[in-house]
Amino acid sequence: MPRMTEHMAARAERSIRMGMVGGGQDAFIGAVHRMAAQLDESMRLVAGALSSTPEKAIASGLALGLDESRCYGSWQDMLVGELALPENERIEVVTIVTPNHVHFKVAMAALEAGFHVVCDKPLVLTVDEAEKLVAAQQASGKVFVVTYNYTGYPMVKQARELVRSGSLGEIRKVMVEYLQGWLATPLEQSGQKQADWRTDPARAGAGAMGDIGSHAENLMSYVTGLQVGSINAEAVTHVDGRKIDDDTTVLLRFCNGASGILTASQICPGCRNGLRLRVWGETGGLEWCQETPNELLETSLDGTDLIHRTGDANVGAPAADATRLPGGHPEAFIEAFANVYRAAAAAIRAGRDDGEFFDYPNVTDGARGVRFINAVIAGSGQGWIEFDA
Amino acid sequence: MPRMTEHMAARAERSIRMGMVGGGQDAFIGAVHRMAAQLDESMRLVAGALSSTPEKAIASGLALGLDESRCYGSWQDMLVGELALPENERIEVVTIVTPNHVHFKVAMAALEAGFHVVCDKPLVLTVDEAEKLVAAQQASGKVFVVTYNYTGYPMVKQARELVRSGSLGEIRKVMVEYLQGWLATPLEQSGQKQADWRTDPARAGAGAMGDIGSHAENLMSYVTGLQVGSINAEAVTHVDGRKIDDDTTVLLRFCNGASGILTASQICPGCRNGLRLRVWGETGGLEWCQETPNELLETSLDGTDLIHRTGDANVGAPAADATRLPGGHPEAFIEAFANVYRAAAAAIRAGRDDGEFFDYPNVTDGARGVRFINAVIAGSGQGWIEFDA
Amino acid sequence: MPRMTEHMAARAERSIRMGMVGGGQDAFIGAVHRMAAQLDESMRLVAGALSSTPEKAIASGLALGLDESRCYGSWQDMLVGELALPENERIEVVTIVTPNHVHFKVAMAALEAGFHVVCDKPLVLTVDEAEKLVAAQQASGKVFVVTYNYTGYPMVKQARELVRSGSLGEIRKVMVEYLQGWLATPLEQSGQKQADWRTDPARAGAGAMGDIGSHAENLMSYVTGLQVGSINAEAVTHVDGRKIDDDTTVLLRFCNGASGILTASQICPGCRNGLRLRVWGETGGLEWCQETPNELLETSLDGTDLIHRTGDANVGAPAADATRLPGGHPEAFIEAFANVYRAAAAAIRAGRDDGEFFDYPNVTDGARGVRFINAVIAGSGQGWIEFDA
Amino acid sequence: MPRMTEHMAARAERSIRMGMVGGGQDAFIGAVHRMAAQLDESMRLVAGALSSTPEKAIASGLALGLDESRCYGSWQDMLVGELALPENERIEVVTIVTPNHVHFKVAMAALEAGFHVVCDKPLVLTVDEAEKLVAAQQASGKVFVVTYNYTGYPMVKQARELVRSGSLGEIRKVMVEYLQGWLATPLEQSGQKQADWRTDPARAGAGAMGDIGSHAENLMSYVTGLQVGSINAEAVTHVDGRKIDDDTTVLLRFCNGASGILTASQICPGCRNGLRLRVWGETGGLEWCQETPNELLETSLDGTDLIHRTGDANVGAPAADATRLPGGHPEAFIEAFANVYRAAAAAIRAGRDDGEFFDYPNVTDGARGVRFINAVIAGSGQGWIEFDA
Repeated sequence: MPRMTEHMAARAERSIRMGMVGGGQDAFIGAVHRMAAQLDESMRLVAGALSSTPEKAIASGLALGLDESRCYGSWQDMLVGELALPENERIEVVTIVTPNHVHFKVAMAALEAGFHVVCDKPLVLTVDEAEKLVAAQQASGKVFVVTYNYTGYPMVKQARELVRSGSLGEIRKVMVEYLQGWLATPLEQSGQKQADWRTDPARAGAGAMGDIGSHAENLMSYVTGLQVGSINAEAVTHVDGRKIDDDTTVLLRFCNGASGILTASQICPGCRNGLRLRVWGETGGLEWCQETPNELLETSLDGTDLIHRTGDANVGAPAADATRLPGGHPEAFIEAFANVYRAAAAAIRAGRDDGEFFDYPNVTDGARGVRFINAVIAGSGQGWIEFDA
Repeated sequence: MPRMTEHMAARAERSIRMGMVGGGQDAFIGAVHRMAAQLDESMRLVAGALSSTPEKAIASGLALGLDESRCYGSWQDMLVGELALPENERIEVVTIVTPNHVHFKVAMAALEAGFHVVCDKPLVLTVDEAEKLVAAQQASGKVFVVTYNYTGYPMVKQARELVRSGSLGEIRKVMVEYLQGWLATPLEQSGQKQADWRTDPARAGAGAMGDIGSHAENLMSYVTGLQVGSINAEAVTHVDGRKIDDDTTVLLRFCNGASGILTASQICPGCRNGLRLRVWGETGGLEWCQETPNELLETSLDGTDLIHRTGDANVGAPAADATRLPGGHPEAFIEAFANVYRAAAAAIRAGRDDGEFFDYPNVTDGARGVRFINAVIAGSGQGWIEFDA
Repeated sequence: MPRMTEHMAARAERSIRMGMVGGGQDAFIGAVHRMAAQLDESMRLVAGALSSTPEKAIASGLALGLDESRCYGSWQDMLVGELALPENERIEVVTIVTPNHVHFKVAMAALEAGFHVVCDKPLVLTVDEAEKLVAAQQASGKVFVVTYNYTGYPMVKQARELVRSGSLGEIRKVMVEYLQGWLATPLEQSGQKQADWRTDPARAGAGAMGDIGSHAENLMSYVTGLQVGSINAEAVTHVDGRKIDDDTTVLLRFCNGASGILTASQICPGCRNGLRLRVWGETGGLEWCQETPNELLETSLDGTDLIHRTGDANVGAPAADATRLPGGHPEAFIEAFANVYRAAAAAIRAGRDDGEFFDYPNVTDGARGVRFINAVIAGSGQGWIEFDA
Repeated sequence: MPRMTEHMAARAERSIRMGMVGGGQDAFIGAVHRMAAQLDESMRLVAGALSSTPEKAIASGLALGLDESRCYGSWQDMLVGELALPENERIEVVTIVTPNHVHFKVAMAALEAGFHVVCDKPLVLTVDEAEKLVAAQQASGKVFVVTYNYTGYPMVKQARELVRSGSLGEIRKVMVEYLQGWLATPLEQSGQKQADWRTDPARAGAGAMGDIGSHAENLMSYVTGLQVGSINAEAVTHVDGRKIDDDTTVLLRFCNGASGILTASQICPGCRNGLRLRVWGETGGLEWCQETPNELLETSLDGTDLIHRTGDANVGAPAADATRLPGGHPEAFIEAFANVYRAAAAAIRAGRDDGEFFDYPNVTDGARGVRFINAVIAGSGQGWIEFDA
């Protein structure tokens, strides 16, 4: 095998003790968080309040092999119970994987109780909540990670490097799309749990825009570093009886003069998890697609098309550090998610909330996402409006 | 070889006598028209006024092997000269491949002189001109073909069949993009002829929107059959000193309730001729890319992904009729363009202007395109405005 | 449009007068030859003996618009009839598109009558015939083109340039495959005309090896320039009742020490026209697939993957000269075939048989192909045997 | 998210206690085994003899966080030390990730000591060793897993289902290739550790054939279920000074009459980990490539091309059970490897060595691989020889 990365080397870093809120039976994202945490043993689950129904919460914890005493019936119980344990046993971080509307109160309480936080996206439902969380995080000094997991892909990091290195020149055009098809039918009417809460305005906040548009905004911002100056949004609901947007598009004017298009849709049959970013500057361009994540196309004025690949010897350090295997051994969603966890664990060990240094999306990124979602939904159909990032 | 199509059979149809206006030395599209006309011997070039500079016009005609007497110094001379010939010798059709601003007067004069017309896109510069041409065509009864050549691809025809057959259900979302990079630099300042006129508002009308957005609008309309009800446009010029849009995006609301995004840009380094159409309905979707034209992806609610391919035994009749070779023998740009010429020749032989029956874009399609371009440029930055197709 | 090639410029070269043998109704390859000849007006069909059945031959000629006097009932009649015409009217070249077993006698007679020859592949059935034709061509000095049409693709020419430039270093491994599926069933038993003669040993000589393996051998030789030193062949018939090989593989030892694999099969359901060449040298590699002909992948020791594309400004002269359109405007099978015709016409105008200079496959290439086919079929199952190229 | 799989559900299965031999610092595959084991918590590393150098072995164990008492200086010590522990604490399985020549003695000793075994491929160096291990496993009744990890991919399992379901009809042609480029230069001369032992006949047995050809043989056998009847092999060394094959190709005759080609090469610059399998039967075909593992192409006689994708609702049970995420969330190498570990853990919990039932490659598969490697190397250059599977 051609290349060993640091990932392959032995490591003795301490695994972080994690308590999870949400993520019990039938939950998708909770299981992903657990696999991401344990792939590198970045964190290990030692406590949980895994459902809003106490019996289910406890049963889920037992099923995952948690110590009975740390299977809590509610997140409030978990915070209290853990604080009662000796410091070197109690959880260090609270991971929040509930429906969106629960994020705020759990995150606030966790910070106030002195825990670090890993929170799924979108951060919260309202701009007011987001600002309160930012303030609380700053007051606490605790590490706060928002799992915009797509930033964990090596080729996304390589894309950011290309932009930062100036290879593309000043950015002029950004296209980001996140297309799914699983809500092309009124699935929520069948009682499917995921569809149920994700299409409920009270629990999800926004629909396609909140669920996946939020990732698109973050990916675009992470790679380009550009600030959005104004937006022109169209949030549409195509499926009869649905109470939330399922197909949303936003035209963007960036502060540097670049133009952008962001579209997030869940009514595109055949689209699975079609997150794709394209960026063009004065002298070059790039394209990355989540479903073929190990390739990054770099283009140039003279027609030279280069394909960068995960694991190649000639990629930059951020991508290389996020890679576990030699070239040609594909890495994917869980590995990318695990990279966020690895960064979170490193920050927690260091006791320092520094998203730029450790390379994770922090509460500020999360708050910007919330402002963006809310501006899009509120501004839908109204032409151009300013956006204060 | 598995399959013979009608194209391979012998054919005795009469080749149409064509006179060309524009398309002399250094012209790109004139040469394409000639190859498209002669691939199937649909038409043969017998006369020409191939440049606005008389000496160059004549020299170009001689260089192409035209009879000296039919190398004209101006299009006016050509119309007069040809009318003086016996009917069975004179040209039957005038093909117009000049810069856009010349289309109108040549086309009007050709119709008035009793000739059929093949005109490059966009049809003309203004809505007023477009309406006059539509009226003149209707008065004349002559065949009028606008070379939106991308409709000539077999898989585009197959895409239209899929929509018409109801496989996709009611259409909900349309994304069409046409991305190029050749104007990412101020190429017009170097004197490059194509860049020169295509970025001159007086000769081109609009920039990216007119040159390629026009194709995107036509492709989308041809495949989906949907009518645009209102538009929300953003026409941008990114290259310093340029006088015309080079990056234009339009949000669309179709009359049936579908949502759309059309983007046309010429400042995307690495993009060559990136015309791509995606359409999703209630039950399925499709995707076609011009740079890999022999494939059409059909998707469905249950996750079944089918790839249709040019030349396959199981494609529909319109695609099969537009195919010259068995599957796996790729066909491309010139063949698709030749399909438009073949349809044009058939209509001219029949003496009947019927774009639907013979399957070519006619003056009505061209006029709609002009209205669309003008509405986009005029409405840029103004949010939603109605569009009267 | 970014780039004008010479193809787009006007040209006054004289179109060569062509007489065709074979290629009447139901023939696939005859129609392809005619389109290839007329795309650039390299040659024009003025006479024909288009079938072995005199009535059909004449009817086919009339259907193609030939002058009645030049619709011949047999190729012998055509040679006699044309020689009786004034030199500046008579055909200059005889194009042979009959089943394989007829090639030899027509080609010999054509050369002896003083005509140039364009002959479909494989050249002839036996090594003896091949040697006689080589001798006859040399004696006559006439131009002799064998339509190994895949060498006409711009990216195949670019591939050869990469090898010749030394980018890949000394070649070590060659893999060429030509996979089709149309003979996966006993189609010949249904009376399908193409299947009928192509699976008949008396008319086709060899099966998959002769029909398509022959193209694979030529493509590999054209791009790499390597000589085969010994072969280890396995010719198999999978379909019950078939009398000819339908799946043949050959291991190769090249004279320079490189290793190779050539496989030609017509029993692979789903494969259409899957000709693919991969070559690796000490320092780089390349890959080209006929079904996506406008791309050429170049790889290297350090993991840099470059994609060359037809029409790009940075490809070499042979590829650029073989290109009609700017980048992103795909060119395909007919254009590649037309490039062979263009080279043939240039050689005929010059009166000089020089395949290297004009860049076409000549009788020597054709004879090597015949030796290869025969060695493979004769040596099947016998392990390694020497091959005298 | 559209679909929950069993993987996402909570699970309380006991994690198996694992002791590892080899896999210390600078080892590639040891780290992969550990990630694969811990992704699902199938197994947990509790003891190790991680290097043949005692000090390094112990340091590596400490670095991985093992209890000091279970960081052994040699595998012999580990077996003794673990047997001295109470049964419910001691390791249950010995995972062997040393260079190939060490496999035999460790595996024999582990079985004799009553441990289950997970052994990297190829199983051992000689046929004699392989037979002894098969006998020892049968005598012991212990679970014995050979980590042919590519069988763990969901789309490989789906490919096997397609063959078993009869969709392809009787198999006629198999092509499997495994191409890498990392040994295109004499890397072993630089002292790179992986290159060093993998090109040493004493430690590796065979070169490209043993290292990766072995995977190719297993993948082909797993998917098709066919038995090889005879082989015709060519094992070549291209790099000067190398003592082992670096480019090996084998023609195959399967017992059912099918034809095959297997090629394994490590001298192809630009190839990373190019394992690709293609299979064609009477009525359909399939293609799978390791570098895009989430897609499986299924083809058919009528030209219908279907793409199966990991996570889709319409794939079969074996693929679905091996999938952790909904469609569009790519899974990759580590997840596939973890599927082998999950099956191994299930078998160990059940105390039953049943590769078919639990779906893992067992010692019989490993032994067949050894026979194949040895037959290829011994038979190289000798034409067809029988192979006794």
